[in-house]
Amino acid sequence: MGDMLWLDKLVQDWWWGLQLLIWGLRGVTRVILANNPLSGLLILAALLWASPWQALLGIVGVLCSTLTAIITGQDRSEVCGGLHGYNGMLVSLLMGVFSSSRDWYWPLLLPVCLGSVTCVLLFSSLSSLLDRWDLPVAVFPFNMTILLFLLCTGPQHPYFPRHWSVPPGARDMNATQLNVLQVLRGIPLGVGQIYACSALGPSLLILGAVLLYSPILAVHALLGSAIGTLAGLSMAVSQSCLYSGLSGFNGALGCMAVGGLFFTFSWRTHLFAISSAFFSAYMDIALSNLLGTVGLPACSWAATIVATLMMLMTGTLKAYRIPIGHVQSPEQNLRSCNQWEAGSPTDRDRESTDV
Amino acid sequence: MGDMLWLDKLVQDWWWGLQLLIWGLRGVTRVILANNPLSGLLILAALLWASPWQALLGIVGVLCSTLTAIITGQDRSEVCGGLHGYNGMLVSLLMGVFSSSRDWYWPLLLPVCLGSVTCVLLFSSLSSLLDRWDLPVAVFPFNMTILLFLLCTGPQHPYFPRHWSVPPGARDMNATQLNVLQVLRGIPLGVGQIYACSALGPSLLILGAVLLYSPILAVHALLGSAIGTLAGLSMAVSQSCLYSGLSGFNGALGCMAVGGLFFTFSWRTHLFAISSAFFSAYMDIALSNLLGTVGLPACSWAATIVATLMMLMTGTLKAYRIPIGHVQSPEQNLRSCNQWEAGSPTDRDRESTDV
Amino acid sequence: MGDMLWLDKLVQDWWWGLQLLIWGLRGVTRVILANNPLSGLLILAALLWASPWQALLGIVGVLCSTLTAIITGQDRSEVCGGLHGYNGMLVSLLMGVFSSSRDWYWPLLLPVCLGSVTCVLLFSSLSSLLDRWDLPVAVFPFNMTILLFLLCTGPQHPYFPRHWSVPPGARDMNATQLNVLQVLRGIPLGVGQIYACSALGPSLLILGAVLLYSPILAVHALLGSAIGTLAGLSMAVSQSCLYSGLSGFNGALGCMAVGGLFFTFSWRTHLFAISSAFFSAYMDIALSNLLGTVGLPACSWAATIVATLMMLMTGTLKAYRIPIGHVQSPEQNLRSCNQWEAGSPTDRDRESTDV
Repeated sequence: MGDMLWLDKLVQDWWWGLQLLIWGLRGVTRVILANNPLSGLLILAALLWASPWQALLGIVGVLCSTLTAIITGQDRSEVCGGLHGYNGMLVSLLMGVFSSSRDWYWPLLLPVCLGSVTCVLLFSSLSSLLDRWDLPVAVFPFNMTILLFLLCTGPQHPYFPRHWSVPPGARDMNATQLNVLQVLRGIPLGVGQIYACSALGPSLLILGAVLLYSPILAVHALLGSAIGTLAGLSMAVSQSCLYSGLSGFNGALGCMAVGGLFFTFSWRTHLFAISSAFFSAYMDIALSNLLGTVGLPACSWAATIVATLMMLMTGTLKAYRIPIGHVQSPEQNLRSCNQWEAGSPTDRDRESTDV
Repeated sequence: MGDMLWLDKLVQDWWWGLQLLIWGLRGVTRVILANNPLSGLLILAALLWASPWQALLGIVGVLCSTLTAIITGQDRSEVCGGLHGYNGMLVSLLMGVFSSSRDWYWPLLLPVCLGSVTCVLLFSSLSSLLDRWDLPVAVFPFNMTILLFLLCTGPQHPYFPRHWSVPPGARDMNATQLNVLQVLRGIPLGVGQIYACSALGPSLLILGAVLLYSPILAVHALLGSAIGTLAGLSMAVSQSCLYSGLSGFNGALGCMAVGGLFFTFSWRTHLFAISSAFFSAYMDIALSNLLGTVGLPACSWAATIVATLMMLMTGTLKAYRIPIGHVQSPEQNLRSCNQWEAGSPTDRDRESTDV
Repeated sequence: MGDMLWLDKLVQDWWWGLQLLIWGLRGVTRVILANNPLSGLLILAALLWASPWQALLGIVGVLCSTLTAIITGQDRSEVCGGLHGYNGMLVSLLMGVFSSSRDWYWPLLLPVCLGSVTCVLLFSSLSSLLDRWDLPVAVFPFNMTILLFLLCTGPQHPYFPRHWSVPPGARDMNATQLNVLQVLRGIPLGVGQIYACSALGPSLLILGAVLLYSPILAVHALLGSAIGTLAGLSMAVSQSCLYSGLSGFNGALGCMAVGGLFFTFSWRTHLFAISSAFFSAYMDIALSNLLGTVGLPACSWAATIVATLMMLMTGTLKAYRIPIGHVQSPEQNLRSCNQWEAGSPTDRDRESTDV
């Protein structure tokens, strides 16, 4: 269904609260690199299905950060596109997942709100920094904020106790024969893990939401998760990582970013997307082992760094790069690229042969 | 009293040694974001009061790095403004504080001199790097150099033994009922901790020196330190951190940088200064917990990073940003901004409404 | 013998395989900042002498990364200059050295190939990033890739077990009286350690290969290694570090980069080269102590960072900086600088007096 940009015009004259809802729903989908309010509704439903408390935290996060962006006078079109919502949502979800308090522990809303505000601040600063290379801010603000929060607290913290992350390379105490079925089940779970969701049903619903937005993206998500699982197997990570989908979600994100979203889809970018998935997955294992020594998770650092590096690459891949301001859904990217080529065929050809 | 820039013209024809003295005194105040030779004298007096050995180290550091800057041909106006002195001074002071040798351990002068030289080198390199975004180098060189020095040594080092830093989140063994009076006493101490000084009298004298330079800055210093203490309380840091002012000084620096110095003072920048203080304080707790796992202090990394990010922010705050070349004392910034507005009122208004 | 750029023209019409050989040999020498196919042959001979398995890994690495660069469409002149080979070679060599499997453990070729591919990807991305400041990518890709690989594995890893790096500041259990002769023997070994080679004969052969390329570079290599050893002594690093040359190789690299290669050789740059060697050596001790806490080596991070910072420096040193596109061997740099000065003497003089 694509980006549904026609909705923005329609909404322009609506009540302010409804506009905020649309912006928020866009923000919800931005987490998984999509941008479509309907997919956002589906994803919210999946989160509610998995855990109502988590869904509430996510909603608070996305609203809080979008409102902060409006108050601090961020660029209007960015706010409308949901760009200021997804980092806040992710921080809130992860705060909930890593908290070792019971569900509905209301004081957690305080760091959730503060964390969402921090994300907006970081987004704004990093965009000035990364603008020089026409790079997206991506989920850097989320990754920084959640690490800072987790570092402030600890397993015995009096107010906000948290789980201690175990590195994937640690010896499994209760390791048994590898269950192939469980490993395969981890592949769709890897897509759900992007929203820190580890139940099969909601993960499939999230995958469906991506499919609604763009089939190319959905295929790459599954492919990337499978590659991540393969990388995990090759490095003998712990079984719990493989079964829960944790070894797959960085691969999925790395694969989606390169395959069709920030680069025009073709068989070449497809090969680069596969490399990106492998690289993301291996880097995730490395970073998880490193951060695990102090009990921290590696979140989506690996995929974010790899996707950013891919966008900086020179050579063949550069010819397929879409300027950040023109990025739409993979299908629309492909279509606008074809239209452009039809209009001025020589220009593009010359560029790709030059390279 | 402001920057006393008229002094520079007066001094131009003086003896070389006297000029160096003025440059050095400016460097001494740059540590606390001020720029006034008289304040520098007051601060030196405070350091002498607290510990003559520490004051000596500081003087050696500021002179050594200023001389290095002259020898390596750094920009004349930067040297005159004391920009090459403050990092060297901070490194020297901190080397003295973290050394577990007795006072007057003369071999320490060797790393003090080497460290000061390194700061000039780093300042020069980082300024080329940060120039692209019109960002100040701030105390990045100090923070890097001191960490490198501390990493080279250790508690059992044969030549330069040092204290092992304990993370603020560590369990207090001898924790008692929180003493509110001691916590309040930690707020002015937080201002002194910027110079690694933990005695009340000298800290108040340092605060007085800031007041002499700019009342706005002094108010923000106290406010920021109070916010830092509040953040520390909310995250249950150890009592020694709260009592010694260590949980306050990053907040103070973060608050001062945004409130009036690098941004024109107004109620909006004041609110941003408060956010900056909170952010600095929380990030300091996080970084201290992280670096504390290998026995290192977080120094002023948090405030430096947060202030840099704030200067990169787009949106409302950007309209108040003062170009680095035009930064003076908060009061003078305000005055020159008003004059400028009086001259071309429409220009500024248009800018702020646009945003 | 310099860069032997005339060879490139000669080779142009040769068989593709021979061209690749020349590119690969250039890549082999790039590791030690040289660029000469004959030196490459000598170095390969040295590696074969030290360990045939290591030499094979190095050859696989350099070929694999050069081929990847061609396939991904990297800049032709960069490929011809061997710029895409040296990072892959270093990664392969270090994977072999840190592997605790026996020699001729064939599965190691898998990470060796993957690591070499990753280096090309990182090289391409980082060059876009560093281009803004006209900085070389240097060995950043190698340093990143090897750390990621080592983090993925561990001493008890089922497929790729590795040695656990001990920080140089750790207490020596079997420390005896310092053997001055062994320390002096460590100085030429420091040059060999650039290729992870710790035997005296091959190290001297490598030094000879550098001498063949440029005597200035060879002198700086030895000098830097000696300075690194001195820095190690002053910080009381473990005897094994001093004896094996590990405390010298970062100093050597830091000294070579500044003394004649990226800056026109003169007595001033020579002094800066000495400072750079000291700074590199001390930073290496610091980083080794830090990374050693999680069992990782600091590789050549220190020298790479210091050389990059030196190239960013303003002031006196900047006047001697050679633009990256014009860097040749130190002797040729000196000659072309003299020619240029003879042609337009006033221009250069004005620049240096201005500074």
